[in-house]
Amino acid sequence: MVVALPENEAQILAILAVCRQFQVPIVPRGAGTGLSGGATPIAGGLVLSTARLNKIIRLDAYARYAVVQPGVRNLAVSDAAAQYGLFYAPDPSSQLACTIGGNVAENSGGVHCLKYGLTHPNVLGVRLITMEGEILELGGTAPDAPGLDLLSLVIGSEGLLGILTEVTLKLLPMAQTAQVIVASFERIEDAGRAVENIIAHGIIPAGLEMMDQTSVRMVEPFARAGYDTEAAAILLCESDGNANEVIDEVARVSQILTQAGARHLRISYSEEERQKLWSGRKNAFPAAGRISPDYYCVDGTIPRKHLAKMLTAIEAMSVRYGLACANVFHAGDGNLHPLILFDANQANAFDTAEKMGAEILALCVELGGTITGEHGVGIEKLNSMCVQFSAEELSVFEGVKCAFDPARLLNPEKAIPTLHRCAEYGRMHVTRGKSRFPELPRF
Amino acid sequence: MVVALPENEAQILAILAVCRQFQVPIVPRGAGTGLSGGATPIAGGLVLSTARLNKIIRLDAYARYAVVQPGVRNLAVSDAAAQYGLFYAPDPSSQLACTIGGNVAENSGGVHCLKYGLTHPNVLGVRLITMEGEILELGGTAPDAPGLDLLSLVIGSEGLLGILTEVTLKLLPMAQTAQVIVASFERIEDAGRAVENIIAHGIIPAGLEMMDQTSVRMVEPFARAGYDTEAAAILLCESDGNANEVIDEVARVSQILTQAGARHLRISYSEEERQKLWSGRKNAFPAAGRISPDYYCVDGTIPRKHLAKMLTAIEAMSVRYGLACANVFHAGDGNLHPLILFDANQANAFDTAEKMGAEILALCVELGGTITGEHGVGIEKLNSMCVQFSAEELSVFEGVKCAFDPARLLNPEKAIPTLHRCAEYGRMHVTRGKSRFPELPRF
Repeated sequence: MVVALPENEAQILAILAVCRQFQVPIVPRGAGTGLSGGATPIAGGLVLSTARLNKIIRLDAYARYAVVQPGVRNLAVSDAAAQYGLFYAPDPSSQLACTIGGNVAENSGGVHCLKYGLTHPNVLGVRLITMEGEILELGGTAPDAPGLDLLSLVIGSEGLLGILTEVTLKLLPMAQTAQVIVASFERIEDAGRAVENIIAHGIIPAGLEMMDQTSVRMVEPFARAGYDTEAAAILLCESDGNANEVIDEVARVSQILTQAGARHLRISYSEEERQKLWSGRKNAFPAAGRISPDYYCVDGTIPRKHLAKMLTAIEAMSVRYGLACANVFHAGDGNLHPLILFDANQANAFDTAEKMGAEILALCVELGGTITGEHGVGIEKLNSMCVQFSAEELSVFEGVKCAFDPARLLNPEKAIPTLHRCAEYGRMHVTRGKSRFPELPRF
Repeated sequence: MVVALPENEAQILAILAVCRQFQVPIVPRGAGTGLSGGATPIAGGLVLSTARLNKIIRLDAYARYAVVQPGVRNLAVSDAAAQYGLFYAPDPSSQLACTIGGNVAENSGGVHCLKYGLTHPNVLGVRLITMEGEILELGGTAPDAPGLDLLSLVIGSEGLLGILTEVTLKLLPMAQTAQVIVASFERIEDAGRAVENIIAHGIIPAGLEMMDQTSVRMVEPFARAGYDTEAAAILLCESDGNANEVIDEVARVSQILTQAGARHLRISYSEEERQKLWSGRKNAFPAAGRISPDYYCVDGTIPRKHLAKMLTAIEAMSVRYGLACANVFHAGDGNLHPLILFDANQANAFDTAEKMGAEILALCVELGGTITGEHGVGIEKLNSMCVQFSAEELSVFEGVKCAFDPARLLNPEKAIPTLHRCAEYGRMHVTRGKSRFPELPRF
């Protein structure tokens, strides 16, 4: 119905008051780069854009934090911090455009989140306004806060609990140096085992990504990163830190990769080469456009040990559904991004792609994982929420939401499905007594 | 009124059902080592002890997690993991006795939490039963979960939201080696500056503790750790990791300490010596008994840069209140533990000690810190909650609590003060518009 672009808190308070008075739902929106539909406008609603809330309010290089408005772009924070040898760690692929407010709403991740954490551990505090017009300041620069952990609750709350007006971000020292290893494997199982062994040895790489043969062949002619197009799967493993740490870690990782069956290792020996080796992975998604008019990026997470099993299952689904699938993984934490390739001009292709995606997510849950790694629930995963959570758990989500927004005006019909929706979806599981850790003995 | 010691979930469900029926409040209790009164029984209530829920259900050394019942002792987890070269990082001083359930309730810390985090980042998931008898499984082995972050909400919720039945803990590889540096300073300001500089250089030590002259003189004749009793303050800084990392970090830290004005450095060169050098700090609290019949341990947090200012202010308070105070700090994160020494046999001494503690906490908030570092709110800090939070913020806490426990039967009158109490306490601040980051410009 209308888009509002406030410039300050007073204007936000006024917008909220009007919407309360006329019971108009509000959809907060950053850059609109989200992948699960969390910022999709609602008919009869108001879109509250953060486009004009784009100032870095303060950057304290000594205490290592920055206070920014929610519309500040992710990369703009690191750009501003670079002169002090600092950076903001969470690096979603969309960081050129996506906003900090959106990152907080989605608890966004990125390649380097394996080592540096998702958005959550990198946010020190927020200031937000609830639908009722209450101003809350959550968190701070102390390591713990008394009372209930509302800061953690707000991070990843997908626009349901309040409108952010300030976010305090942790800044980290830039690593002195970094090297990436690209390893080729003849068998997917070997690549999966290599991932497990790296983590089991207590190594937390700066990044640990896997690409299957389909995705490698999709991107190599475009990016010319030098990937092995005959490999069943490749791993990219980055190490950062001071020179001694990196030398040590690269040696240990190389040994683990070789012992797991890597047929070839390529190690970067300059910053230029490091960027080049990453350029394939970074261009994987856009490269889908070379071979397919459309793709659907699925986002799910599984325990690392099931990586190979999942890839095999997806191959079988490809045959069944008649759709090719290129797989890119944040292997270090088991977050998978199958890119289902389809042509929307073909009758039913869109629905078929969605069905295949839903089956992949259901398998994630079955293997002890979860229906989203980093893209959020939004609209896209509402039905899958019915599969992952019990009626009791959904009720608690709803109760907490209502503690912040009893009128349910903030981003309705996103993220938390109603019990009614779940009943209709027909997949309501009664999970009383069912463990999320499938191999554990029950009481 | 009664103590229940359930052995399994079925018994817990039965206890909850009876208490719901008769509207009997429940106080969950682990080892009772908490320092803020969170497990203090209530007249007419039931104490639900976790003493019989003391099994380690499963330990997966490869995937590096352990699933334990809430009554398992903190140290028992590391003891069980040691054979795999793993340990559970959060190490409260009471770890010999305190339970994991208590640790989760309080988001407990310890000396090594500066590097490894408080309880929060070390808990992967929980299984709990709400007062209404609902079983919730929160978290899991994936790095992020969809929906609202209820796991984070439960950690640190001080027994208000549910009864834990299983906790999944992250296990970390034991460091190959560790060294501690003990540095002596002639001036408190130098010690404070050294702490800031260590952190500002991007070093996160395994532990960074400060003791003032009073606490050093209190413990040295007992522990004979070799501390400099003439120093105004001493710092203990530990480095752990593989041999190269530790050599490197110890060299950098030593340089920083010296440049900040350290008069003397002592570095451990054997595990035996490392333990000996820590024994003073570890015995600081018990050593108070050498010179005082009673002490009151205050727990607050301030931004690191105000350490020296706070110690000076406490010295002045000592004079005003007529009570000596020995100070021990988790300097790395600004968490202070003033030990106010008093004799409860003296008329009004107890009240005077409490008043001095409250003034110290009020100063913490004024300096931009918080009223608890790691001991929780319990009963002790209820009034201070009125100082730190606005009416709106307290209302949101209450709303979230009611989403879990609408009957308010779980641990009532703990952690979250009523607005009525705050009004009576007379310290209600209207914080609308007031920033928790005092130096920041406001809109």
